[in-house]
Amino acid sequence: MAKQAKPCVLVTGFAPFGGETINPSWEAVNQLEGLAIGRQESHIIHTKELPCEFNSALDALYQAIDKYHPSVVLCVGQAGGRSSISIERVAINVDDARIPDNAGNQPIDTPIVQDGPAAYFTALPIKRILKTLQENGIPSEISNTAGTYVCNHVMYGLLHYFQSQQLSCQGGFIHIPYLPTQAVHHSGAPSMSQEMVKKSLLAILNESLEYKPDLKISAGTTH
Amino acid sequence: MAKQAKPCVLVTGFAPFGGETINPSWEAVNQLEGLAIGRQESHIIHTKELPCEFNSALDALYQAIDKYHPSVVLCVGQAGGRSSISIERVAINVDDARIPDNAGNQPIDTPIVQDGPAAYFTALPIKRILKTLQENGIPSEISNTAGTYVCNHVMYGLLHYFQSQQLSCQGGFIHIPYLPTQAVHHSGAPSMSQEMVKKSLLAILNESLEYKPDLKISAGTTH
Amino acid sequence: MAKQAKPCVLVTGFAPFGGETINPSWEAVNQLEGLAIGRQESHIIHTKELPCEFNSALDALYQAIDKYHPSVVLCVGQAGGRSSISIERVAINVDDARIPDNAGNQPIDTPIVQDGPAAYFTALPIKRILKTLQENGIPSEISNTAGTYVCNHVMYGLLHYFQSQQLSCQGGFIHIPYLPTQAVHHSGAPSMSQEMVKKSLLAILNESLEYKPDLKISAGTTH
Amino acid sequence: MAKQAKPCVLVTGFAPFGGETINPSWEAVNQLEGLAIGRQESHIIHTKELPCEFNSALDALYQAIDKYHPSVVLCVGQAGGRSSISIERVAINVDDARIPDNAGNQPIDTPIVQDGPAAYFTALPIKRILKTLQENGIPSEISNTAGTYVCNHVMYGLLHYFQSQQLSCQGGFIHIPYLPTQAVHHSGAPSMSQEMVKKSLLAILNESLEYKPDLKISAGTTH
Repeated sequence: MAKQAKPCVLVTGFAPFGGETINPSWEAVNQLEGLAIGRQESHIIHTKELPCEFNSALDALYQAIDKYHPSVVLCVGQAGGRSSISIERVAINVDDARIPDNAGNQPIDTPIVQDGPAAYFTALPIKRILKTLQENGIPSEISNTAGTYVCNHVMYGLLHYFQSQQLSCQGGFIHIPYLPTQAVHHSGAPSMSQEMVKKSLLAILNESLEYKPDLKISAGTTH
Repeated sequence: MAKQAKPCVLVTGFAPFGGETINPSWEAVNQLEGLAIGRQESHIIHTKELPCEFNSALDALYQAIDKYHPSVVLCVGQAGGRSSISIERVAINVDDARIPDNAGNQPIDTPIVQDGPAAYFTALPIKRILKTLQENGIPSEISNTAGTYVCNHVMYGLLHYFQSQQLSCQGGFIHIPYLPTQAVHHSGAPSMSQEMVKKSLLAILNESLEYKPDLKISAGTTH
Repeated sequence: MAKQAKPCVLVTGFAPFGGETINPSWEAVNQLEGLAIGRQESHIIHTKELPCEFNSALDALYQAIDKYHPSVVLCVGQAGGRSSISIERVAINVDDARIPDNAGNQPIDTPIVQDGPAAYFTALPIKRILKTLQENGIPSEISNTAGTYVCNHVMYGLLHYFQSQQLSCQGGFIHIPYLPTQAVHHSGAPSMSQEMVKKSLLAILNESLEYKPDLKISAGTTH
Repeated sequence: MAKQAKPCVLVTGFAPFGGETINPSWEAVNQLEGLAIGRQESHIIHTKELPCEFNSALDALYQAIDKYHPSVVLCVGQAGGRSSISIERVAINVDDARIPDNAGNQPIDTPIVQDGPAAYFTALPIKRILKTLQENGIPSEISNTAGTYVCNHVMYGLLHYFQSQQLSCQGGFIHIPYLPTQAVHHSGAPSMSQEMVKKSLLAILNESLEYKPDLKISAGTTH
């Protein structure tokens, strides 16, 4: 199989769920399609909207990976109620859906991969990313849980695919706040502008393409 | 005394306080200087940075009012930790400073105006403003307390001046969230982009210049 | 009408509202009925459950005041979502109901007392109360808004009655958290045990009966 | 070594850390020493205070397990800022200390067990525990992160010991809120009474000793 001429990265967002009419992840990701990224614009960005469905989200993700052979895969999802760009550290091998997904499925305490490892750590340089985002004036944090819904499912599935297919990709998951237009309908909920989310995603991709070791800077939580 | 040729409005922001190096209120307000506002650009905007000091903030405010004879006076302050544009409903006649102001004063349970009324309600059409902001996709809320620090002090002092000087002005107080660059240093704190704050202030001024009765729409709290 | 032989205090709680089956205020207040309070058990405690209704709550309150001639009137209400005993500083002259009351009424931006003052400050020694509660290990705070629902309505009405009837009473309003049994149904909501609420109310009554000047200790908010 | 005559369980709490003078976990756990638990009081409770130190906490835990051969090991820690009994679902193989531990160590992004699995799922019936606690009127929740400090370290180390020593124990980790006396010093922080924490721990132990399969009830989060 011939490799693609131009190196690329893949960024995914989600379809709306949980009563929302938009998903800020796809709203932002969609704007990145075809842009060049990396030093000397070394990579182009491909994007993909994933369904918010346990059964089909990973199929769509794997197809896109197989199609594009990306150097980095960045999956992005909505975290309504969070204030900052959340850089996820770890995905766990369980689905426990508080609400049904968009296909009506609500798995409870089901492994994502039967006999898979309990968790995968991200394959992104999360501390370097954190430092870069903060230096750019973007509220951001390391998160130690991506939940137990489709977002965690996709993050786990992504990292399992890297492992099982022996792909030497970087990749991971980022949660983003509501857009201001959504927060209007969630009294008191924090939000982030689409411009800032877009800027964040570009910074994360650039940082990931640097291929330097991650930094050891403290960004943990006591609980 | 000759009246000014061109009708105007006055918008104030504050100097930084509490360890911050910027105050998002003045950062945004400062950008409005000299802009035209209202139907057919009927009014120009004057701006003024107020010191974050109990003793001198109102002097500076009153001087600006006397100088410009504005139709609307909109005072703006930082509410670190809030997520939305907070449209203040009421100011109370007490200073109770949790931290010293920028001049080192920390009044505790002191009336702002000796023998003044316990409170003044805002002289802005707050429900119309709320509706307009939300229709423009801006997270916003009615707040029933402006605190007991310099912000409440200035709001009370403003409305007392309207009353005591028999000015037929509109005016009131708006609290705004941290800027993203500030929230970086306050883990988990919500923020709002300067563009959105600026857009909010212009919408509030335009709405205030409409001189229509306020709407009766529910925006209260149970506690 | 002859004055009562034994001096007394009056403590009120509310009926449940907003879908709750109990109201922690009445659950706690109800346990105080007939207890002796004050130095040398100088006063007995009368209690009264108020309807959560704009129209009739104050009638019930005024009847109880007229009946008992209490030295102190302490009104207590539920503040679901707050973590601490909230000692209210001020009540404002407006009803703005986010939800209908138990009689189906939902007043919006209506004065509680036509031509009444914009606000009344509490007639309780709130800083002494705060200090006492904290010394007793009870999470507590001064609150600068009692909301715009029936709680604020009752607090304003109480203080207006003191004023209009020239009663030399002490009195005010305290908001309390959910009970743990309620918080079970409000994911992540803080709660306080009934024992601690009861202990708080007794401490507040005792402190109020001391008739010493209030303390000047800082307990304000910047917004 | 002869097995103990009487079956037992082991419950651990922590020493104070982070500037606190008490740790609510040990305050509550300490009260359980020697109590009988389980159907027909089948088991006695042993307790152990663990140091809040990465290096020595697990040594102390393993010594206690080796000494008592408990059927259940329940480790308990403080989660200041949480409102509910937090039943931890998973521990991850990383230390990332936001603050130094009590011995002055601050590991950053260090594996707890070199080449250990990325995570261990709890060995407690967490959904049955959740249901029982809620039926008993105790605010409680499943948590998907125990942080990256000594609490997560101990939970991971406990479950790794079960695995490496092939112990057929049940066990896991519970986070508890501040005590009210602590919350007094953390403005706005939620708290839980010691009585309720004690009642929770006994209910968790009883539920664990039932040896029934866990329930499949939804208790996940979307992020």
